[in-house]
Formats: sequence, structure tokens, C-alpha cells
Amino acid sequence: MTNPLKISSRALNFPESPIRKLNPLADRAKDEGVKVYHVNIGQPDIATPEEFMRGIREANIDVLEYSPSKGIRKVLESLTGYYNDQRIELSSDELMVTTGGSEAGLFAFYTTLEQGEEILIPEPFYTNYRGFAQMTGVEIRPIPTERANNFALPEQTEIENLVTEKTGALLLTNPSNPTGRVYTDREISTARRVVMENDLFLISDEVYREFAYGDSRPVSALNLEGMEDRAIMIDSISKRLSGCGARIGTLASRNEKIMNTALRLGQSRLSPPTMGQLGLTNFLNSSSYPEEIEAMIDRYEKRRNTLLKHLEGVEGLDFGKPDGAFYLMVSLPVEDAEDFVRWMLTDFRDNGETVMMAPGEGFYNTPGKGRDQVRLSYVLNRKNLERVADLIGKGLAQYEE
Amino acid sequence: MTNPLKISSRALNFPESPIRKLNPLADRAKDEGVKVYHVNIGQPDIATPEEFMRGIREANIDVLEYSPSKGIRKVLESLTGYYNDQRIELSSDELMVTTGGSEAGLFAFYTTLEQGEEILIPEPFYTNYRGFAQMTGVEIRPIPTERANNFALPEQTEIENLVTEKTGALLLTNPSNPTGRVYTDREISTARRVVMENDLFLISDEVYREFAYGDSRPVSALNLEGMEDRAIMIDSISKRLSGCGARIGTLASRNEKIMNTALRLGQSRLSPPTMGQLGLTNFLNSSSYPEEIEAMIDRYEKRRNTLLKHLEGVEGLDFGKPDGAFYLMVSLPVEDAEDFVRWMLTDFRDNGETVMMAPGEGFYNTPGKGRDQVRLSYVLNRKNLERVADLIGKGLAQYEE
Repeated sequence: MTNPLKISSRALNFPESPIRKLNPLADRAKDEGVKVYHVNIGQPDIATPEEFMRGIREANIDVLEYSPSKGIRKVLESLTGYYNDQRIELSSDELMVTTGGSEAGLFAFYTTLEQGEEILIPEPFYTNYRGFAQMTGVEIRPIPTERANNFALPEQTEIENLVTEKTGALLLTNPSNPTGRVYTDREISTARRVVMENDLFLISDEVYREFAYGDSRPVSALNLEGMEDRAIMIDSISKRLSGCGARIGTLASRNEKIMNTALRLGQSRLSPPTMGQLGLTNFLNSSSYPEEIEAMIDRYEKRRNTLLKHLEGVEGLDFGKPDGAFYLMVSLPVEDAEDFVRWMLTDFRDNGETVMMAPGEGFYNTPGKGRDQVRLSYVLNRKNLERVADLIGKGLAQYEE
Repeated sequence: MTNPLKISSRALNFPESPIRKLNPLADRAKDEGVKVYHVNIGQPDIATPEEFMRGIREANIDVLEYSPSKGIRKVLESLTGYYNDQRIELSSDELMVTTGGSEAGLFAFYTTLEQGEEILIPEPFYTNYRGFAQMTGVEIRPIPTERANNFALPEQTEIENLVTEKTGALLLTNPSNPTGRVYTDREISTARRVVMENDLFLISDEVYREFAYGDSRPVSALNLEGMEDRAIMIDSISKRLSGCGARIGTLASRNEKIMNTALRLGQSRLSPPTMGQLGLTNFLNSSSYPEEIEAMIDRYEKRRNTLLKHLEGVEGLDFGKPDGAFYLMVSLPVEDAEDFVRWMLTDFRDNGETVMMAPGEGFYNTPGKGRDQVRLSYVLNRKNLERVADLIGKGLAQYEE
């Protein structure tokens, strides 16, 4: 009686998360009683600050109302204070609260790019950009970077070879997920020239801002001279406050038109979640801020060092020393890293334990690239990371392609 | 030095909320010390259930993690229990938790319709559908309904005159925002035939499900025979739990492909907010459910009756008796209702008080329609609603076009 209905082709082509698609294998292992160390996702194990949770617990709300579409006023004020501390001067007209960094990303793509336009993104890149691109009908043009070169941004001419008449924006994730790279002043200057000379927008994803180790400090796109109309920042509290489930992010720009239209997008989804906003403002106004973030960053730096040290003991691995975020791209001595990741979940056990990694290929658009790579998130404590390196080594020794 | 940058035309054309655009006038009145009764928005004044807030307060969370993209398992389970109580049998594969009903709407448009396709919606309609349509590149084709006819759905042939080869879906809001109409079995049967015979999807926005007074009971699209592959339900806890700020909604369908692709959209925004999910499941599992919802509906029914009774005393108004939701569309004895609404905010004061209404025109796509109408939300207590009717009457008596 009914024809087979067609759902939209864009939905059918919507990319599956390469990070989450192997979850069923991990679930099966756990059902068998196996302990799985998750270094595949960026879900920190560090406690959300007590003052954040207190802001939620003691909110004393009678009616859990819509917040204003751009965020609660006192939250915007405490956010401008936070950015000020980060040496990013922002008025509350220049930012809005979003439902996670994800929504900020979607709004940034939608407002800067027409249907069918292209965005340049250094590859490997955060996989969900593919979702924002598909949702907004935008094409991703990857800028190739190399593991051997620590994923440095190429020279201006090489990037400009990728610019077409359809190119509308360049996106940088700084510090980078998945490479951990913190772009140098020289690279930022290259990106700035590409953007200025080709009349592009710069979308800057700065959710890992504080996650910069040693002397490296990421430059905010909002502080680049002459870029006031061009720079759009995506931000999120998910990582720096271990508050992924709060779904609170920020979109910021000094371009008034961008912010005005983004706010209209915001009105069409009514408001960002109220509870997370209350947690955030309570934390930022408490005496725990900023020390608690700093202490957390110290822990991640030590975790990075532990992971690097123990991976150095594993034969056949190739990786650099990332300066930021909490990710490491590693080349494995195998042809097909995804097959190895699957095998670790289905077949490999050591004392009833195994590891789940994210296959590298999913972070690339260029076919075949990253096939021997995995992304490791050092979101576990050092003892666990030591064990992760140990398990990877043992796995590789037993694995037969 | 820099060219004037072009932000995307689709963003520039993004519709402004006709309900929120007059907010600055209301703010100015309040700054002058005027008390403004808000019947312009659907923000209830009724307290969020204590057991909902307790679920948030006592969540005892160490790390505020991402929830699964489709929602926390125990939340999905308590939701299937709720739907079961509503006589909608659903397995947990047939639904997902969304970030408010807004996101469910966006996902429904995106998965069922191609770029450039058309969706039929009875007019007047909830204004944010325009945002979902603009975001997904879909055209709204309004199905005209008339105030004089209590906004009843027209006959099948009249609706089918609007069907083109680009039509992909029909959307019903049942009970309706902004008209308060609960569609009769006959109208639902008409809609069903239109959908079946023209090979369309039926998107059914059921966020006001419980808000049905007297003997009227809205039919869920998910219970329509032969529509298993065609029906997609949008739902939200915002109204029935006075929890608008929690941002928790539901998307449900028995069409497996729809749910699979919607879940991929869901992965690209990672997860719905955690705290609201915990509040919801605690409430649904508590002894307050379902009585507290029932008691709230009784209050709204009495509010409706109070508002209708007192508006009857105002000369020149034209309105029907809506059976559901908490809205009333009223024709005023003026040519330009928006001008009257503005004037009430800027010029009219009675004892230092005034009213803010939503101009009706914003709920129509057809130019000029609804120009003499306003939408009133009876989300205030009865004493305040009495005063609202009083103020409207006094305002109309003083107003000169």
C-alpha cells in the first residue's frame, strides 16, 4: 500500500562518528567481564569542580525557565571576566552562550558560508566538523599536514593552492584535536595572511586554550590585528571544567553582523541549558577559579609525559611530542590501524584487560591517509596510561595482520 | 584594507523571532518601573516539580560526563514508560533524547526533507518552524485556516491543491500552538489520507499532548495505522514539566532509517544535557508522577476559562474556545495589532501596569494574514489573567489608530 519512503539523501549521507562506531565491540568485551581502558574519546576522568556542581545543586530554582537566547546576563558577564583573564578583551555583545562547542561550530559554519562553499581545515581534524559541514551543505577541503613534521601548517603558497572561488573560510583548532599541535606565531601569521589576502573568514576552535604545556601558548584569533571582522571563535567549557555533560559553549566575534545573525539562530532553538550556565558562573565567581583549572592542566602535562615515556618503550611506534590538548596521534607498525583497534577489542586480552583507541583514518578526508595511525586521549590517570602503553606493546607483539 | 566581508545570505535571511523582537520595548517599560504582564511567550509560571529539581540537586555527580548521544539508558527507559502511560507503545530503539523539542524539530526537517523541498503546515503556526526550515533549506507551504472556523483543518482536496512534486511532509502541531486547537478524529483522518495518498512524511509536534481540556484528547501520529514509516513525533518536557530551561525533548519514529540517521545527527552534537535528563527520570520514577502533571493541567483549564470569561466582557474581540495548549488567538477591533501591542508597551499605563502580547501576523506566512490578531498565552495565574483582560479592554478604549 505505501511506497518505500525516501528519507533525505543528505541525512543518509550524514557521516557516522568514527570514534563512536566501534563502541558495540567495546560493550561486548565489557559484557564478557573484560576491563577496557578508553583512550578513544576525549572524556576526562577528572572531577568537575566542586564549585561548578554547587552552583547547580544550590541554584534554588522555582521555575526552571528558558534563559535568554544568548545566555543569562550574569553568565555573559562572568564569561567576559574569564576571557579578560585570558587576555581576550570581549564585550558581552561580542559573545553568546551556545549549547556546547558543537552548536557554536554549527552556527559558525552556517553564518560564514553559503550552501556549496568550501572550508579549509588542516588534516587530520576533529571529526565532528564533518557533521557541521554536512548539516550546512559545506565542503571540507583538507590542508594536508604530516606526522613526520609534527603536523605543522604548510607554507602560504601550499595552502593557497587549495583556495578556489568557492572558498569561504579557514578553520584552525588551536591547540589541535587530534594532533595536540599548538600553532606557532609563524603558522598563525601564515594563516592570517591566507585569510586576509583571499578574503576569508577564520573560524578558530579554542576549546583546548588552557591545555598548552611548557612554554607554548596558543594565540586567540580574536587578538589578531586587522581580523576583527574575519575572526569567529568557537569555545566550550567541556574540557577545561570536565563538564562535557553541561553542554555549555561560546561563540564570539567582533563582527556585529555575525553575532546578530547567530543570535537569530539562537532564538530558533530558544535557549542554551540553564543548569550548566548556573554551574559555570558559580565556579568562575568562586575562589577555586582559576587555580583549579591550572592544577588540572598540570596533571594533564604529567599525563602526557608519562604516556610519551612509556610509549617510547614500545617498538615500532612513531609519534612526536605534542604541546597541547590531550591527544596524541601515533603511527603503528601495522598497515590497517582500524583492524588492530578492532582486534584489540575482540581478541586481545591481558589479565582480562584491553585498550580502546580511535582509528586515525577517521580524522582524515583524503582517502588512505592516517591508515596506520591511532589517536590516543590521555584522559586517564598516569597509572592507567602506563598500563595502556603496556597493553598496546603486548597487543602489537601478538597481532598478526 | 579588507573588503567588506559577506556573511552567508541564508544567515542574513534568517527569520527574527516575532515573539521576542518587541522585548526591548518591554524592557524599557520595566526600566521605568512599569509592571508588564507577559502573555506573549509560552513560559509558564508554575513551579517545576520538586522531584524533578531533586533529581538534579541530588545527582551526586563526580564527573559531569557526556551522556550517550541518544540519551542516558535509564532516561530512555523511563520515557518509554511515560509514553506507555500515554498509550503510545514505543521501544527504546524508536526514540532518542534531544536538546529540547527545538532540536527534535530540526532533526525531523533535516531527515525527511531534501534541500529545496516543501513542507505543508496549517497556518497560523509556531514561528520557530520557520527557523528549522531556513536552517535546512526547506520551504514552508502554509495551509490556510480561519479564525471564524476555529482554525479547523480544511478538506482533503483543499490541502491537496497545495501539494507539488516538491512536497515532502505535512506537519501538525497537536494541540496547536498558537491556536489551541485539538484536531478532531475527522481532521486527523484527513491528514492521514493526504500523507498516505501523496507519499509524504507526517511530522507531529505533540509537546502539548496533556494540555487538552474537557473531553478532547489529541491523537498521537505514532498510533495511526499504516503510518509506521511515515510518522515522526517531536516532543518536549518543557511545558508539561515547566522545565523549559532543562532543554530536554524527544524525537520518536517507528521508521528505523529515520532513527538511525537522526542518531548520527545526534552524534555530531555529542549529547543532550545531562542534568535535565537526571531531573526527568527522577520525576517520572517518583510518586509525584503523574498526579502533578494532572493537577497542573487542571490549573490551565481553569485559567483558560477565566481568561475567556473576562475577555468576553471586552467589546470588539473575536475568539473561539480552544480545547488545548495554553494559547488563544484573538482578533482585535484594530487594523494593525502589532501597532497596538507596541503602543501598549510604550504609551499605555493603568496604575503603572500594562500587558505584552504577541502580534498575530508573525504566526502566518501569507502576507497580511493575522494582522488584526494577537496570541495570548495563559501562563499566568487567574488573578493576573483577569487583570490582563481588564488592561486589554482599557487599552482598546484609549487606543487611536
